[in-house]
Amino acid sequence: MTHQTPEAYIHDVAAAAANRSHNEPEFLQAMSEVLDTLVPVLQEHPEFVDAAVLERLVEPERQILFRVPWLDDNNKVQVNRGFRVQFNSALGPFKGGLRFHPSVNLSVIKFLGFEQIFKNALTRQRIGGAKGGSDFDPHGKSDEEVMRFCQSFMNELYRYIDEQTDVPAGDIGVGAREIGYLFGQYRRITGRHESGVLTGKGKVWGGAEVRTQATGYGTVCFAQEMLNRTGEDIEGRRALVSGSGNVAIYAIEKITQLGGIPVTASDSSGYIVDEQGIDVELLRQI
Amino acid sequence: MTHQTPEAYIHDVAAAAANRSHNEPEFLQAMSEVLDTLVPVLQEHPEFVDAAVLERLVEPERQILFRVPWLDDNNKVQVNRGFRVQFNSALGPFKGGLRFHPSVNLSVIKFLGFEQIFKNALTRQRIGGAKGGSDFDPHGKSDEEVMRFCQSFMNELYRYIDEQTDVPAGDIGVGAREIGYLFGQYRRITGRHESGVLTGKGKVWGGAEVRTQATGYGTVCFAQEMLNRTGEDIEGRRALVSGSGNVAIYAIEKITQLGGIPVTASDSSGYIVDEQGIDVELLRQI
Amino acid sequence: MTHQTPEAYIHDVAAAAANRSHNEPEFLQAMSEVLDTLVPVLQEHPEFVDAAVLERLVEPERQILFRVPWLDDNNKVQVNRGFRVQFNSALGPFKGGLRFHPSVNLSVIKFLGFEQIFKNALTRQRIGGAKGGSDFDPHGKSDEEVMRFCQSFMNELYRYIDEQTDVPAGDIGVGAREIGYLFGQYRRITGRHESGVLTGKGKVWGGAEVRTQATGYGTVCFAQEMLNRTGEDIEGRRALVSGSGNVAIYAIEKITQLGGIPVTASDSSGYIVDEQGIDVELLRQI
Amino acid sequence: MTHQTPEAYIHDVAAAAANRSHNEPEFLQAMSEVLDTLVPVLQEHPEFVDAAVLERLVEPERQILFRVPWLDDNNKVQVNRGFRVQFNSALGPFKGGLRFHPSVNLSVIKFLGFEQIFKNALTRQRIGGAKGGSDFDPHGKSDEEVMRFCQSFMNELYRYIDEQTDVPAGDIGVGAREIGYLFGQYRRITGRHESGVLTGKGKVWGGAEVRTQATGYGTVCFAQEMLNRTGEDIEGRRALVSGSGNVAIYAIEKITQLGGIPVTASDSSGYIVDEQGIDVELLRQI
Amino acid sequence: MTHQTPEAYIHDVAAAAANRSHNEPEFLQAMSEVLDTLVPVLQEHPEFVDAAVLERLVEPERQILFRVPWLDDNNKVQVNRGFRVQFNSALGPFKGGLRFHPSVNLSVIKFLGFEQIFKNALTRQRIGGAKGGSDFDPHGKSDEEVMRFCQSFMNELYRYIDEQTDVPAGDIGVGAREIGYLFGQYRRITGRHESGVLTGKGKVWGGAEVRTQATGYGTVCFAQEMLNRTGEDIEGRRALVSGSGNVAIYAIEKITQLGGIPVTASDSSGYIVDEQGIDVELLRQI
Amino acid sequence: MTHQTPEAYIHDVAAAAANRSHNEPEFLQAMSEVLDTLVPVLQEHPEFVDAAVLERLVEPERQILFRVPWLDDNNKVQVNRGFRVQFNSALGPFKGGLRFHPSVNLSVIKFLGFEQIFKNALTRQRIGGAKGGSDFDPHGKSDEEVMRFCQSFMNELYRYIDEQTDVPAGDIGVGAREIGYLFGQYRRITGRHESGVLTGKGKVWGGAEVRTQATGYGTVCFAQEMLNRTGEDIEGRRALVSGSGNVAIYAIEKITQLGGIPVTASDSSGYIVDEQGIDVELLRQI
Repeated sequence: MTHQTPEAYIHDVAAAAANRSHNEPEFLQAMSEVLDTLVPVLQEHPEFVDAAVLERLVEPERQILFRVPWLDDNNKVQVNRGFRVQFNSALGPFKGGLRFHPSVNLSVIKFLGFEQIFKNALTRQRIGGAKGGSDFDPHGKSDEEVMRFCQSFMNELYRYIDEQTDVPAGDIGVGAREIGYLFGQYRRITGRHESGVLTGKGKVWGGAEVRTQATGYGTVCFAQEMLNRTGEDIEGRRALVSGSGNVAIYAIEKITQLGGIPVTASDSSGYIVDEQGIDVELLRQI
Repeated sequence: MTHQTPEAYIHDVAAAAANRSHNEPEFLQAMSEVLDTLVPVLQEHPEFVDAAVLERLVEPERQILFRVPWLDDNNKVQVNRGFRVQFNSALGPFKGGLRFHPSVNLSVIKFLGFEQIFKNALTRQRIGGAKGGSDFDPHGKSDEEVMRFCQSFMNELYRYIDEQTDVPAGDIGVGAREIGYLFGQYRRITGRHESGVLTGKGKVWGGAEVRTQATGYGTVCFAQEMLNRTGEDIEGRRALVSGSGNVAIYAIEKITQLGGIPVTASDSSGYIVDEQGIDVELLRQI
Repeated sequence: MTHQTPEAYIHDVAAAAANRSHNEPEFLQAMSEVLDTLVPVLQEHPEFVDAAVLERLVEPERQILFRVPWLDDNNKVQVNRGFRVQFNSALGPFKGGLRFHPSVNLSVIKFLGFEQIFKNALTRQRIGGAKGGSDFDPHGKSDEEVMRFCQSFMNELYRYIDEQTDVPAGDIGVGAREIGYLFGQYRRITGRHESGVLTGKGKVWGGAEVRTQATGYGTVCFAQEMLNRTGEDIEGRRALVSGSGNVAIYAIEKITQLGGIPVTASDSSGYIVDEQGIDVELLRQI
Repeated sequence: MTHQTPEAYIHDVAAAAANRSHNEPEFLQAMSEVLDTLVPVLQEHPEFVDAAVLERLVEPERQILFRVPWLDDNNKVQVNRGFRVQFNSALGPFKGGLRFHPSVNLSVIKFLGFEQIFKNALTRQRIGGAKGGSDFDPHGKSDEEVMRFCQSFMNELYRYIDEQTDVPAGDIGVGAREIGYLFGQYRRITGRHESGVLTGKGKVWGGAEVRTQATGYGTVCFAQEMLNRTGEDIEGRRALVSGSGNVAIYAIEKITQLGGIPVTASDSSGYIVDEQGIDVELLRQI
Repeated sequence: MTHQTPEAYIHDVAAAAANRSHNEPEFLQAMSEVLDTLVPVLQEHPEFVDAAVLERLVEPERQILFRVPWLDDNNKVQVNRGFRVQFNSALGPFKGGLRFHPSVNLSVIKFLGFEQIFKNALTRQRIGGAKGGSDFDPHGKSDEEVMRFCQSFMNELYRYIDEQTDVPAGDIGVGAREIGYLFGQYRRITGRHESGVLTGKGKVWGGAEVRTQATGYGTVCFAQEMLNRTGEDIEGRRALVSGSGNVAIYAIEKITQLGGIPVTASDSSGYIVDEQGIDVELLRQI
Repeated sequence: MTHQTPEAYIHDVAAAAANRSHNEPEFLQAMSEVLDTLVPVLQEHPEFVDAAVLERLVEPERQILFRVPWLDDNNKVQVNRGFRVQFNSALGPFKGGLRFHPSVNLSVIKFLGFEQIFKNALTRQRIGGAKGGSDFDPHGKSDEEVMRFCQSFMNELYRYIDEQTDVPAGDIGVGAREIGYLFGQYRRITGRHESGVLTGKGKVWGGAEVRTQATGYGTVCFAQEMLNRTGEDIEGRRALVSGSGNVAIYAIEKITQLGGIPVTASDSSGYIVDEQGIDVELLRQI
């Protein structure tokens, strides 16, 4: 088998990917930034070189682009392009947001989907990475135009998703309104009220709060792993957290679970310091 | 509704497509060449402008790209990219070849798929246009490597094809051997021996001869349409056909059916002339 | 087993059906008119009484009613009811028209579906009887409103139909335009370009002429059966046909096939008489 | 958009529904009783008028009627009619009982299904409303006749149900025996041992106790909502509960959870009063 | 690769199969009789040895055994075993009869399925080989018992068959009655009236005459192949056919097509000789 | 109905099974050993005799045998036989291991599957009994050969399994490596990352620890049932447990839950005695 050095291996993988995806600058930049950090991992795990792990990591499992025709309020047909890049499902079902914005193209979606693999892995929940969306611009559209676009988008997307295959969520341009229209059409076509197939639904008709903790937990897990590398631990350490939204609250919660002492939190109007460690429940009430 | 001139409409459609697919030079060239010829059609059918027919024509209904991992004879994992562009099914199920060649990329497949729409429409059979393939190079590979690649390729492709959805065929790098491996895996996974899901199979295990006449017939139908425009007809006219393969033979057959008189045929070693009209059956025997 | 007389059996079946469907006057009238004619059949086949054939004949195999919400041109939600009564498939896949008209209700659809069983059986093609539609009124609606209604209607109907299950066709209020919108949505959702799932499509995008002969053939087959009962035959007999549309033409064709001599045809402006038997090909050209 | 008063809007909706379902007296009565109570809701939420919420609420999403042939113990074919009205799934998968009783018809099933929407909504669990059954009378039938009827009923029903689509349960005439036969045939056909597709199964082969609390919880949630309207709360209040079955026990449990003091319970032989609040665990043991 | 002699290769394959299926004497005998005749084939095609064709030929692609519970007329549960051996589908969908007889076991079904591969191949139609059935004995059972058995049998079998996967037919104990019950239940469960999924249905409800010519044609094709081996041909030769049933008639037809002269036919009461060649149409009328 | 004695009934059932499966000695021995212990059960429940429960228990619901072709490292085709015996799902989805070993044949798999019914039932979790595997020998094969075998095996098996149908696990010759290859191919074909479809996966990519307690719990539940028979109970009793692996630890845990006092545990190097009852958490740390 191969006896390449990690550096040479990474170079070869990056070069092959750059050749195959030469017209996707956003993706290529994200990919090479990640690859460059992996030298220590490959030094520790030379079997990853033999197993061609990186070649498989940089190539999405499945990329789907589709035509989305819809009627505007003047009954004129408009045409957009829809995307779903199911990048990697080694750890679990694909999961990642949908973005509706004129800047969306395949390179952008691949770049975001590639990063989603690592974001999701850091949560230590069993979820893979994906991203999707459209170059449709919801800005300035009527509710009914957005609805008709979303229904047409889902007429195609429904084939590729379900709770154990791929779980889209919201992102820029896709809020509770859009998720509602998307889920409604999914339910209409499949007949299934799968509570988990789309996340971000308004709570009144079945939205789940599951996984809102993902980013906050992920941040702390990442720090824990970093400390472990040098023989250290979060346990007993004091931690400075900035912010007081979902990310900060769940970071504080996880720090506490791991025996750390979160001593600060902040918002736009000030900050709090508690040397004994901030009480999450108390923080939530504020 | 809109009152654009055909020229302005075509310009707008081409500009929007160029913006959306700016990194696909092969496709953009094929598209603009076709669009430029459509001015007379739009003059005759201004309702095509109102109905936004061209916007829909230049955007594929579905583009699927997928990872194809396979083991080479040294048990090393190799990774290629697979493609299937289902461009337009307004007239019937998608149909178009699979190309296995290092030059394959999304722009090339879209270009070929776009042209396939028109080629298939000219046959007057009810078939839509599609194209697919991979940047895999069968050249220099062992039979078993090709087999393992084809099986892995079909592990993904099988979801998107069946007799009434999409019917792939061979093309460069995809001959009877490859179609055989692909069909074998299709049958293994789906359990179905669909005789029509792949064309180009060797005759010994179910290959059909259907549609080998497509190109020859299409050529003559096209000429017939051209003549009709100027009030003329193939009937009674003498036609010069060059070549003597499948295309030529079926062109001669169709010319005869339409009342024309095919007076020549040729191959690399000479030609024949028969002022009474060439007898197809006779030609076949030669 | 039972030893009921045919009359008593028919009375019991009709009474039970009247009780079960007491609020469906159109259906009950059609049913009792048919049942009353069946006494001779049951006298000849007393085993039909033992096998409870009539109880099964008067109860549809499946009746589906569904909500059809759609947006009018003012973006206001409208709600209609859709119907599909799959009455009997003993002889083949269900087949029968879709009617869009304000007078449509379950009783009307059942009445039409019940009659369709016999109409279809008389063609001697292997097709069962069905009927469907909606109380939607296409009259006075814009093309886009009709399109949105048809798409919503098909979002539900697609589950229940395919070439070997149920084959809807047009009827009052459902012409080539509606069939086109319905088929488009069927293809969008299922991905399948099933040429046979809907009949009545405009020819330009796949409409088939198959079965246009059904009513004309059926009429003559019926007459043939009647004559056979009394030991007579169509062969050698002269037949008077009125009309000159599809029904008349195919009746004349079938009469000729069976050895009869069709001597008349007519339209709103006159009639023709040919004692030698009318030539169908000639008639078609007129 | 519309500026109707709530009263006028409700009147129009009721009139349209009465026209569409004029032969369903039980359903129409239930509908108009509910609609009349909704004036305050519409005054608070005029957007419900614009959004045509009530038109959609009074029309079932899907109504399925089907023929159920079965053999009695004399090997004579009997025919019944089966029903499933999937009324509304806005909040979650359809859920509602199956009733086997000679009085069952479409009007009765629609009336029960309509009420089920609200009963299920009050539980605050995410479940929609449905109802089904047959005019089959299990009374006086042998076990094997009931089994054969249930198997034939499920041969059709299985298409429309699964854990995330529609979850039938027992009702009049459908107890553990019938649910057992129904589930057995569901498993036979689908191959799936979905523990949640039918509720009410005997515990020995997989019956779940989930949702037995629904009615009791719903009652208290309803009272809570009523009190909230007038600025009051269950917390701290004493509550009189009559009965001591499942409904009463779970009502007492929920009252306690909300801080109320359930002071009575009763059964056919007497009652208990405990001014300190009844202990549910104690009550269960009695 | 291997350089075994045909004899050694056949010996090894037979030994391995005998080891794997040591308790199946009927199958082993059929297999070894066939293998022994293949020496000349392997001498001509040594690549069949390298490709391990025989190892694959002697092992069925799929063998399914299943429990068939049913109620007898005393409402007592009876249990039988059902079988379907899908032996080889290299040439086309599986096809082969169902046998209901107490002697049925896995060895017998494999033996029959193995022979069916070759019988079907000889017809030169694209069909693979299969066989199935049950140790159920229809002899002495009431119609209703047979019906309940057949319905239970199909409750399992329906998963494994359709027109392009596997097409069962009748055999011993499975006539038009049984095929009717089987097809009825297939249609009930799948909702599809697939005219081709079962052959041998009574003509009145959709039975096809297709393939009744298989055995007669196969016999002549086999003789033709034999003659070709020695440089001879059927053309111009006189042929003696015994019998006058379907096999004989289609043999005579095929002989005529190939230019041979069928000079005899016979039945239990005599024979005919026509030195000019028997006219099939004439024979049919007799 | 029947009035057989339990002994006579068991004799008849065993004789019929022996006749039907006469060439399966391993299965027959396991079956008769179990049946002989059931006399007291049948004395208590004579309705089991009338309901023909044992006839159904000894016949597997479904037995699937399939050809598994694969390429060895010399690119030579090898052929093995795969098995899945889905023995009984009365209590829940099928569950049971896969064994890859040259000794595997149908009799062995049936014997193991039969015992699995009872093992699984004793856990009181809702799971049925199954077993499967192949006569493939992973011993001496390269990783890639094992991978190719596993992928080919799953190309067939995937049809028969999912979380609510059948849940295979490891057994002899099927460890984390094989489960990984099997799950990878399952996910590739179905697109679903069903965390529960295969148990025994390595934890890093989604392996669940669920049900590792099954055997230990089952053992204690069995003892509890035995004691109940004689009016005794585990509560308050001292129990001697030998071993200190998963089985022992969960047995100790369950004993404690039921109020018993586990006083011993052991491993190959010694034992511990604690008259107060062993603390499971303490034991785990050791």
